[in-house]
Amino acid sequence: MKSNQQAFLEEHISCWDKLSIIEQKVLLEKAQVLKYDKGTLVHSAGSDCIGILLIQKGELRVYMVSEEGREITLYRLFEGDVCILSASCVLNSITFDVHIDTESDSEVIQIPSKTFLDLSEKNVHMECFGYQVSAQRFSEVMWAMQQILFMSFDKRLAIFLIDESIKNGSDTLHLTHEQVAKYMGSAREVVSRMLKYFSEEKWVSLSRGTIQILDRKKLRSLTV
Amino acid sequence: MKSNQQAFLEEHISCWDKLSIIEQKVLLEKAQVLKYDKGTLVHSAGSDCIGILLIQKGELRVYMVSEEGREITLYRLFEGDVCILSASCVLNSITFDVHIDTESDSEVIQIPSKTFLDLSEKNVHMECFGYQVSAQRFSEVMWAMQQILFMSFDKRLAIFLIDESIKNGSDTLHLTHEQVAKYMGSAREVVSRMLKYFSEEKWVSLSRGTIQILDRKKLRSLTV
Repeated sequence: MKSNQQAFLEEHISCWDKLSIIEQKVLLEKAQVLKYDKGTLVHSAGSDCIGILLIQKGELRVYMVSEEGREITLYRLFEGDVCILSASCVLNSITFDVHIDTESDSEVIQIPSKTFLDLSEKNVHMECFGYQVSAQRFSEVMWAMQQILFMSFDKRLAIFLIDESIKNGSDTLHLTHEQVAKYMGSAREVVSRMLKYFSEEKWVSLSRGTIQILDRKKLRSLTV
Repeated sequence: MKSNQQAFLEEHISCWDKLSIIEQKVLLEKAQVLKYDKGTLVHSAGSDCIGILLIQKGELRVYMVSEEGREITLYRLFEGDVCILSASCVLNSITFDVHIDTESDSEVIQIPSKTFLDLSEKNVHMECFGYQVSAQRFSEVMWAMQQILFMSFDKRLAIFLIDESIKNGSDTLHLTHEQVAKYMGSAREVVSRMLKYFSEEKWVSLSRGTIQILDRKKLRSLTV
């Protein structure tokens, strides 16, 4: 493993300092870099449980699939994020399984399930790290669930953006998140979070003080 | 705190043995018994974060509420279960909030948020306990989400039970979970889990080799 990869690992495994020198050495020896093409199924229910993936480049999507094949995106992971559900087999309290694929060409540092399990059994900080990351993902799933089940704010925001673009005769809106929140009578954090979601889905792009509509058709489909 | 309550606490706080004598003493000093009538709102978004609740008697329901007031039940907690999301304010990785109420007269042992936080900061096993229980709840929420989003197996099971009761002219069905699974072409664990859910909702009651339909109207409403 190259020194920059090692530094990346030390930075993003938050319990690194709580591991002994020997445990750190084991982790560095067993960790390996994996490269995936866009659209690769990295993990699925019933498949091997490959371990924790630390994302160096690219994007992973975590989703559920119904019996009939319908997909629901739970969350997306980007550079610096830790993918924990690909190691669900070694987390006793996680009893469900998900699908994970790559949304772009990706490069990850893999900590194999067995290595993670061995370290977790020896050092409670490693176990705690796994469960803490799980709790973060739990928060993201709850957010997704609220959006899907209550389907209100995304719809309202889509209507607002389309109305504004019609009003201004342009797909480029010069608005801060603060202003959008004020106009919509909502909280800035809620607006920012939903705009971030819209931009991850590539329906809009965001830059300082500007919201650019990229996929008007998709936004329209939210409003019906 | 009475000795039986102390024993109950020691039994259900799985990290108990990893706490120092002093930490155990603090926990016992600060823990207190709370009694709630049926239908009490124990915790809600924006309200005080009362801490971890260990259920001695009764039943808690954890649910989300939409802006328009629609409720979605995430899971239910029974005797011996640990309610962790009532302490979400002290779990950094949990960034959402839920509502929790009592479904029957309940008695809980409360570990105040501040006590839990102090112990978590001193002893990683306590922190890990909190996140591990969160991961269990994550699993339950994923189960609920699958049921709600994909809405297939509960519907199929409701149809099966109603058909059987019509066929036999009785609300009492003499069937094992194994038999139901066989007739439905499904797995026994899936049938058992869904029947458990139906019984928690009091739509059926279960005893050895028998399924009793309690709420035919509700089962029918699932089938449309």
